[in-house]
Amino acid sequence: MAADEVLSRERILEAAEDVLRRFGPQKATVVDVARALNVSHGSVYRHFASKAALRDAVAERWLARVSAPLEAIARDDGPADARLRQWFDRLIEAKHRKVLDDPELFETYHRIAMDAREVVIAHVDHLLDQLTRIIADGAAQGIFKTTDPIATARAVLDATARFHKPAHAGEWRDPGIMAAFDGVWKLVLAGLKAG
Amino acid sequence: MAADEVLSRERILEAAEDVLRRFGPQKATVVDVARALNVSHGSVYRHFASKAALRDAVAERWLARVSAPLEAIARDDGPADARLRQWFDRLIEAKHRKVLDDPELFETYHRIAMDAREVVIAHVDHLLDQLTRIIADGAAQGIFKTTDPIATARAVLDATARFHKPAHAGEWRDPGIMAAFDGVWKLVLAGLKAG
Repeated sequence: MAADEVLSRERILEAAEDVLRRFGPQKATVVDVARALNVSHGSVYRHFASKAALRDAVAERWLARVSAPLEAIARDDGPADARLRQWFDRLIEAKHRKVLDDPELFETYHRIAMDAREVVIAHVDHLLDQLTRIIADGAAQGIFKTTDPIATARAVLDATARFHKPAHAGEWRDPGIMAAFDGVWKLVLAGLKAG
Repeated sequence: MAADEVLSRERILEAAEDVLRRFGPQKATVVDVARALNVSHGSVYRHFASKAALRDAVAERWLARVSAPLEAIARDDGPADARLRQWFDRLIEAKHRKVLDDPELFETYHRIAMDAREVVIAHVDHLLDQLTRIIADGAAQGIFKTTDPIATARAVLDATARFHKPAHAGEWRDPGIMAAFDGVWKLVLAGLKAG
Protein backbone atom coordinates (compact mmCIF):
# COMPACT_ATOMS: atom_id res chain seq x y z
CA MET A 1 0.00 0.00 0.00
CA ALA A 2 1.51 3.30 -1.06
CA ALA A 3 0.17 5.14 1.99
CA ASP A 4 2.01 2.67 4.22
CA GLU A 5 5.36 3.37 2.69
CA VAL A 6 5.41 7.02 3.73
CA LEU A 7 3.74 6.35 7.06
CA SER A 8 5.79 8.28 9.62
CA ARG A 9 5.52 8.53 13.39
CA GLU A 10 4.56 12.15 12.87
CA ARG A 11 1.69 11.35 10.51
CA ILE A 12 0.32 8.74 12.88
CA LEU A 13 0.42 11.19 15.78
CA GLU A 14 -1.42 13.83 13.77
CA ALA A 15 -4.11 11.32 12.85
CA ALA A 16 -4.28 10.06 16.46
CA GLU A 17 -4.83 13.60 17.77
CA ASP A 18 -7.58 14.11 15.24
CA VAL A 19 -9.26 10.81 16.19
CA LEU A 20 -8.96 11.58 19.92
CA ARG A 21 -10.54 14.99 19.42
CA ARG A 22 -13.44 13.48 17.50
CA PHE A 23 -14.11 10.32 19.56
CA GLY A 24 -12.62 11.18 22.97
CA PRO A 25 -9.89 9.18 24.75
CA GLN A 26 -12.27 6.42 25.90
CA LYS A 27 -13.70 5.49 22.52
CA ALA A 28 -10.76 6.13 20.18
CA THR A 29 -8.97 2.96 19.04
CA VAL A 30 -5.85 2.16 17.06
CA VAL A 31 -8.15 0.83 14.34
CA ASP A 32 -9.77 4.30 14.09
CA VAL A 33 -6.34 5.85 13.65
CA ALA A 34 -5.37 3.31 10.99
CA ARG A 35 -8.67 3.90 9.18
CA ALA A 36 -8.14 7.68 9.22
CA LEU A 37 -4.74 7.08 7.58
CA ASN A 38 -6.10 4.47 5.19
CA VAL A 39 -3.55 1.90 6.40
CA SER A 40 -3.80 -1.42 8.27
CA HIS A 41 -3.70 -1.32 12.08
CA GLY A 42 -0.57 -3.47 11.84
CA SER A 43 1.16 -0.52 10.16
CA VAL A 44 0.33 1.68 13.14
CA TYR A 45 1.53 -1.00 15.58
CA ARG A 46 4.86 -1.10 13.73
CA HIS A 47 5.45 2.45 15.05
CA PHE A 48 3.62 2.21 18.39
CA ALA A 49 3.67 -1.12 20.23
CA SER A 50 0.33 -0.53 21.98
CA LYS A 51 -2.58 1.85 22.35
CA ALA A 52 -0.91 3.05 25.58
CA ALA A 53 2.33 3.82 23.71
CA LEU A 54 0.36 5.85 21.16
CA ARG A 55 -1.53 7.67 23.93
CA ASP A 56 1.76 8.46 25.71
CA ALA A 57 3.22 9.87 22.49
CA VAL A 58 0.13 12.08 21.99
CA ALA A 59 0.42 13.37 25.57
CA GLU A 60 4.14 13.98 25.10
CA ARG A 61 3.56 15.94 21.92
CA TRP A 62 0.84 18.00 23.58
CA LEU A 63 3.05 18.86 26.58
CA ALA A 64 6.06 19.56 24.37
CA ARG A 65 4.04 22.32 22.70
CA VAL A 66 4.25 24.08 26.08
CA SER A 67 7.84 23.31 27.04
CA ALA A 68 9.64 23.49 23.68
CA PRO A 69 9.11 27.24 23.07
CA LEU A 70 10.49 27.89 26.58
CA GLU A 71 13.79 26.17 25.80
CA ALA A 72 15.21 29.22 24.01
CA ILE A 73 14.65 31.34 27.13
CA ALA A 74 16.45 28.76 29.29
CA ARG A 75 19.39 28.65 26.81
CA ASP A 76 19.71 32.43 26.47
CA ASP A 77 22.49 34.22 28.35
CA GLY A 78 20.76 37.50 29.22
CA PRO A 79 19.99 38.68 32.78
CA ALA A 80 18.31 35.79 34.61
CA ASP A 81 15.61 37.87 36.34
CA ALA A 82 14.18 39.12 33.03
CA ARG A 83 14.43 35.61 31.52
CA LEU A 84 12.69 34.06 34.52
CA ARG A 85 9.79 36.47 34.17
CA GLN A 86 9.64 35.85 30.42
CA TRP A 87 9.71 32.07 31.01
CA PHE A 88 6.73 32.33 33.37
CA ASP A 89 4.81 34.74 31.15
CA ARG A 90 5.14 32.33 28.22
CA LEU A 91 4.34 29.26 30.34
CA ILE A 92 1.24 30.87 31.85
CA GLU A 93 0.08 32.29 28.54
CA ALA A 94 0.39 28.89 26.84
CA LYS A 95 -1.43 27.09 29.67
CA HIS A 96 -4.23 29.63 29.99
CA ARG A 97 -4.73 29.79 26.23
CA LYS A 98 -5.10 26.00 26.05
CA VAL A 99 -7.76 26.02 28.73
CA LEU A 100 -9.64 29.15 27.70
CA ASP A 101 -9.56 28.73 23.89
CA ASP A 102 -11.14 25.27 23.88
CA PRO A 103 -12.01 23.93 27.36
CA GLU A 104 -13.40 20.68 25.94
CA LEU A 105 -10.29 19.90 23.94
CA PHE A 106 -8.18 20.79 26.97
CA GLU A 107 -10.24 18.35 29.05
CA THR A 108 -9.61 15.63 26.44
CA TYR A 109 -5.85 16.13 26.41
CA HIS A 110 -5.74 16.57 30.17
CA ARG A 111 -7.42 13.18 30.63
CA ILE A 112 -4.97 11.58 28.20
CA ALA A 113 -2.06 13.13 30.09
CA MET A 114 -3.44 12.00 33.48
CA ASP A 115 -3.23 8.40 32.20
CA ALA A 116 0.32 8.96 30.97
CA ARG A 117 1.91 9.50 34.42
CA GLU A 118 5.52 8.88 33.32
CA VAL A 119 5.14 11.38 30.50
CA VAL A 120 3.80 14.06 32.87
CA ILE A 121 6.64 13.43 35.33
CA ALA A 122 9.17 13.79 32.51
CA HIS A 123 7.44 17.02 31.39
CA VAL A 124 7.60 18.56 34.88
CA ASP A 125 11.25 17.46 35.15
CA HIS A 126 11.92 19.19 31.85
CA LEU A 127 10.31 22.42 33.08
CA LEU A 128 12.28 22.13 36.34
CA ASP A 129 15.48 21.64 34.38
CA GLN A 130 14.82 24.81 32.34
CA LEU A 131 14.05 26.76 35.53
CA THR A 132 17.17 25.38 37.25
CA ARG A 133 19.37 26.57 34.39
CA ILE A 134 17.89 30.09 34.53
CA ILE A 135 18.28 30.23 38.32
CA ALA A 136 21.86 28.87 38.21
CA ASP A 137 22.65 31.54 35.58
CA GLY A 138 21.14 34.13 37.94
CA ALA A 139 23.39 32.94 40.77
CA ALA A 140 26.45 33.09 38.48
CA GLN A 141 25.42 36.60 37.38
CA GLY A 142 25.11 37.69 41.04
CA ILE A 143 21.39 38.50 40.56
CA PHE A 144 19.99 35.58 42.62
CA LYS A 145 21.35 34.20 45.87
CA THR A 146 21.13 30.40 46.08
CA THR A 147 23.52 27.54 46.70
CA ASP A 148 21.02 24.94 45.46
CA PRO A 149 19.45 25.99 42.14
CA ILE A 150 17.53 22.69 41.82
CA ALA A 151 15.78 23.11 45.19
CA THR A 152 15.16 26.80 44.44
CA ALA A 153 13.66 25.97 41.03
CA ARG A 154 11.30 23.49 42.68
CA ALA A 155 10.24 26.12 45.25
CA VAL A 156 9.62 28.71 42.51
CA LEU A 157 7.55 26.25 40.47
CA ASP A 158 5.53 25.28 43.58
CA ALA A 159 5.01 28.93 44.63
CA THR A 160 3.48 29.72 41.23
CA ALA A 161 1.30 26.57 41.01
CA ARG A 162 -1.94 28.56 41.06
CA PHE A 163 -1.07 30.09 37.69
CA HIS A 164 0.07 27.06 35.70
CA LYS A 165 -1.16 23.83 37.34
CA PRO A 166 -4.30 22.42 35.64
CA ALA A 167 -5.84 21.87 39.13
CA HIS A 168 -6.40 25.65 39.11
CA ALA A 169 -7.69 25.91 35.53
CA GLY A 170 -11.14 26.91 36.84
CA GLU A 171 -9.64 30.14 38.26
CA TRP A 172 -8.00 31.29 35.03
CA ARG A 173 -11.06 33.14 33.75
CA ASP A 174 -10.86 35.42 36.81
CA PRO A 175 -9.96 38.87 35.42
CA GLY A 176 -7.66 39.44 38.43
CA ILE A 177 -5.55 36.33 37.78
CA MET A 178 -2.55 38.11 36.22
CA ALA A 179 -2.56 40.80 38.93
CA ALA A 180 -2.46 37.93 41.44
CA PHE A 181 0.48 36.40 39.55
CA ASP A 182 2.24 39.74 39.66
CA GLY A 183 1.89 39.81 43.46
CA VAL A 184 3.43 36.33 43.77
CA TRP A 185 6.11 37.21 41.22
CA LYS A 186 7.26 40.26 43.23
CA LEU A 187 7.43 38.20 46.42
CA VAL A 188 9.33 35.34 44.72
CA LEU A 189 11.72 37.71 42.93
CA ALA A 190 12.52 39.51 46.20
CA GLY A 191 13.13 36.10 47.80
CA LEU A 192 15.43 34.99 44.95
CA LYS A 193 17.45 38.21 45.13
CA ALA A 194 17.75 38.10 48.93
CA GLY A 195 18.40 34.32 49.07
CA MET B 1 -43.07 19.08 72.16
CA ALA B 2 -40.34 19.19 74.84
CA ALA B 3 -37.56 18.56 72.38
CA ASP B 4 -38.68 21.63 70.41
CA GLU B 5 -38.35 23.96 73.33
CA VAL B 6 -34.62 23.38 73.78
CA LEU B 7 -33.99 23.18 70.04
CA SER B 8 -30.98 25.40 69.43
CA ARG B 9 -29.20 26.37 66.24
CA GLU B 10 -26.25 24.40 67.53
CA ARG B 11 -28.25 21.19 68.02
CA ILE B 12 -29.75 21.46 64.55
CA LEU B 13 -26.31 21.90 63.00
CA GLU B 14 -24.97 18.86 64.84
CA ALA B 15 -27.90 16.77 63.60
CA ALA B 16 -27.53 18.19 60.08
CA GLU B 17 -23.84 17.23 59.97
CA ASP B 18 -24.72 13.74 61.10
CA VAL B 19 -27.46 13.43 58.46
CA LEU B 20 -25.17 14.77 55.73
CA ARG B 21 -22.45 12.29 56.64
CA ARG B 22 -24.91 9.41 56.51
CA PHE B 23 -26.97 10.33 53.43
CA GLY B 24 -24.60 12.61 51.50
CA PRO B 25 -25.39 16.20 50.46
CA GLN B 26 -27.62 15.19 47.53
CA LYS B 27 -30.02 12.98 49.44
CA ALA B 28 -30.15 14.65 52.86
CA THR B 29 -33.30 16.71 53.46
CA VAL B 30 -34.54 19.07 56.17
CA VAL B 31 -37.11 16.39 57.02
CA ASP B 32 -34.27 13.94 57.76
CA VAL B 33 -32.68 16.49 60.09
CA ALA B 34 -36.01 17.09 61.87
CA ARG B 35 -36.55 13.33 62.19
CA ALA B 36 -33.10 12.84 63.71
CA LEU B 37 -33.99 15.50 66.30
CA ASN B 38 -37.48 14.14 66.82
CA VAL B 39 -39.04 17.53 65.98
CA SER B 40 -41.26 18.82 63.15
CA HIS B 41 -39.53 20.19 60.05
CA GLY B 42 -41.28 23.50 60.84
CA SER B 43 -39.16 23.71 63.99
CA VAL B 44 -36.00 23.41 61.90
CA TYR B 45 -37.26 26.04 59.42
CA ARG B 46 -37.81 28.42 62.37
CA HIS B 47 -33.97 28.48 62.72
CA PHE B 48 -32.99 28.04 59.07
CA ALA B 49 -35.19 29.59 56.40
CA SER B 50 -34.27 27.03 53.71
CA LYS B 51 -32.25 23.91 53.00
CA ALA B 52 -29.66 26.23 51.41
CA ALA B 53 -29.42 28.28 54.63
CA LEU B 54 -28.87 25.11 56.63
CA ARG B 55 -26.25 23.88 54.14
CA ASP B 56 -24.44 27.25 54.31
CA ALA B 57 -24.40 27.09 58.10
CA VAL B 58 -22.93 23.55 57.99
CA ALA B 59 -20.23 24.70 55.54
CA GLU B 60 -19.49 27.74 57.71
CA ARG B 61 -19.12 25.59 60.82
CA TRP B 62 -16.84 23.17 58.99
CA LEU B 63 -14.59 25.98 57.68
CA ALA B 64 -14.57 27.75 61.05
CA ARG B 65 -12.97 24.62 62.55
CA VAL B 66 -9.95 25.51 60.40
CA SER B 67 -9.88 29.30 60.83
CA ALA B 68 -10.95 29.71 64.49
CA PRO B 69 -7.86 28.05 66.05
CA LEU B 70 -5.66 30.32 63.90
CA GLU B 71 -7.19 33.47 65.35
CA ALA B 72 -5.04 33.33 68.53
CA ILE B 73 -1.88 33.34 66.37
CA ALA B 74 -3.11 36.39 64.43
CA ARG B 75 -3.93 38.21 67.72
CA ASP B 76 -0.65 37.40 69.44
CA ASP B 77 2.04 40.08 69.62
CA GLY B 78 5.18 37.95 69.28
CA PRO B 79 7.65 38.16 66.36
CA ALA B 80 5.65 38.03 63.14
CA ASP B 81 7.98 35.65 61.26
CA ALA B 82 7.55 32.89 63.89
CA ARG B 83 3.80 33.53 64.05
CA LEU B 84 3.47 33.39 60.28
CA ARG B 85 5.19 30.01 60.15
CA GLN B 86 3.04 28.77 63.06
CA TRP B 87 -0.10 30.02 61.29
CA PHE B 88 0.80 28.08 58.14
CA ASP B 89 1.86 24.95 60.03
CA ARG B 90 -1.52 24.89 61.81
CA LEU B 91 -3.48 25.69 58.64
CA ILE B 92 -1.72 23.00 56.62
CA GLU B 93 -1.93 20.44 59.42
CA ALA B 94 -5.69 21.03 59.81
CA LYS B 95 -6.31 20.83 56.05
CA HIS B 96 -4.18 17.74 55.46
CA ARG B 97 -5.66 15.97 58.49
CA LYS B 98 -9.20 16.56 57.18
CA VAL B 99 -8.34 15.07 53.82
CA LEU B 100 -6.14 12.18 54.98
CA ASP B 101 -8.10 11.07 58.05
CA ASP B 102 -11.39 10.57 56.21
CA PRO B 103 -11.23 11.34 52.46
CA GLU B 104 -14.88 10.44 51.94
CA LEU B 105 -16.12 12.78 54.66
CA PHE B 106 -13.81 15.49 53.31
CA GLU B 107 -15.34 14.97 49.86
CA THR B 108 -18.84 15.38 51.36
CA TYR B 109 -18.01 18.63 53.17
CA HIS B 110 -16.03 19.88 50.20
CA ARG B 111 -19.06 19.41 47.93
CA ILE B 112 -21.27 21.22 50.45
CA ALA B 113 -18.77 24.08 50.63
CA MET B 114 -18.51 24.30 46.82
CA ASP B 115 -22.27 24.99 46.73
CA ALA B 116 -21.92 27.63 49.45
CA ARG B 117 -19.86 30.10 47.41
CA GLU B 118 -20.50 33.13 49.64
CA VAL B 119 -19.45 31.17 52.71
CA VAL B 120 -16.19 30.08 51.07
CA ILE B 121 -15.44 33.65 49.98
CA ALA B 122 -16.03 34.87 53.55
CA HIS B 123 -13.76 32.08 54.85
CA VAL B 124 -10.89 33.00 52.50
CA ASP B 125 -11.40 36.68 53.44
CA HIS B 126 -11.15 35.70 57.09
CA LEU B 127 -7.88 33.84 56.49
CA LEU B 128 -6.57 36.79 54.47
CA ASP B 129 -7.50 39.15 57.31
CA GLN B 130 -5.56 37.02 59.82
CA LEU B 131 -2.55 36.90 57.48
CA THR B 132 -2.76 40.66 56.87
CA ARG B 133 -2.64 41.35 60.61
CA ILE B 134 0.44 39.14 61.07
CA ILE B 135 2.20 40.74 58.09
CA ALA B 136 1.29 44.28 59.23
CA ASP B 137 2.69 43.41 62.68
CA GLY B 138 5.85 42.16 60.98
CA ALA B 139 6.19 45.47 59.11
CA ALA B 140 5.68 47.41 62.38
CA GLN B 141 8.29 45.19 64.06
CA GLY B 142 10.76 45.86 61.25
CA ILE B 143 10.90 42.13 60.35
CA PHE B 144 9.01 42.35 57.05
CA LYS B 145 9.27 45.04 54.40
CA THR B 146 5.91 45.91 52.83
CA THR B 147 3.84 49.03 52.34
CA ASP B 148 0.71 47.04 51.42
CA PRO B 149 0.11 44.21 53.92
CA ILE B 150 -3.21 43.24 52.25
CA ALA B 151 -1.60 42.70 48.83
CA THR B 152 1.34 40.93 50.47
CA ALA B 153 -1.00 38.63 52.43
CA ARG B 154 -2.78 37.71 49.20
CA ALA B 155 0.56 36.95 47.49
CA VAL B 156 1.68 34.77 50.43
CA LEU B 157 -1.61 32.84 50.42
CA ASP B 158 -1.39 32.35 46.64
CA ALA B 159 2.27 31.28 46.79
CA THR B 160 1.41 28.52 49.28
CA ALA B 161 -1.75 27.31 47.47
CA ARG B 162 -0.27 23.88 46.75
CA PHE B 163 -0.21 23.11 50.47
CA HIS B 164 -3.65 24.26 51.59
CA LYS B 165 -6.03 24.54 48.60
CA PRO B 166 -8.34 21.52 48.20
CA ALA B 167 -7.53 21.47 44.45
CA HIS B 168 -4.18 19.95 45.52
CA ALA B 169 -5.59 17.49 48.07
CA GLY B 170 -4.51 14.56 45.87
CA GLU B 171 -0.84 15.55 46.40
CA TRP B 172 -0.98 15.62 50.21
CA ARG B 173 -0.14 11.93 50.65
CA ASP B 174 3.19 12.56 48.92
CA PRO B 175 5.82 11.99 51.66
CA GLY B 176 7.83 14.94 50.30
CA ILE B 177 4.99 17.46 50.65
CA MET B 178 6.25 19.16 53.83
CA ALA B 179 9.81 19.36 52.48
CA ALA B 180 8.29 21.08 49.43
CA PHE B 181 6.41 23.48 51.71
CA ASP B 182 9.66 24.24 53.50
CA GLY B 183 11.27 25.19 50.20
CA VAL B 184 8.43 27.60 49.38
CA TRP B 185 8.45 28.93 52.96
CA LYS B 186 12.15 29.84 52.78
CA LEU B 187 11.65 31.64 49.47
CA VAL B 188 8.56 33.52 50.72
CA LEU B 189 10.19 34.44 54.03
CA ALA B 190 13.26 35.80 52.23
CA GLY B 191 10.92 37.81 49.99
CA LEU B 192 8.97 39.19 52.95
CA LYS B 193 12.16 40.22 54.76
CA ALA B 194 13.70 41.83 51.66
CA GLY B 195 10.45 43.49 50.50
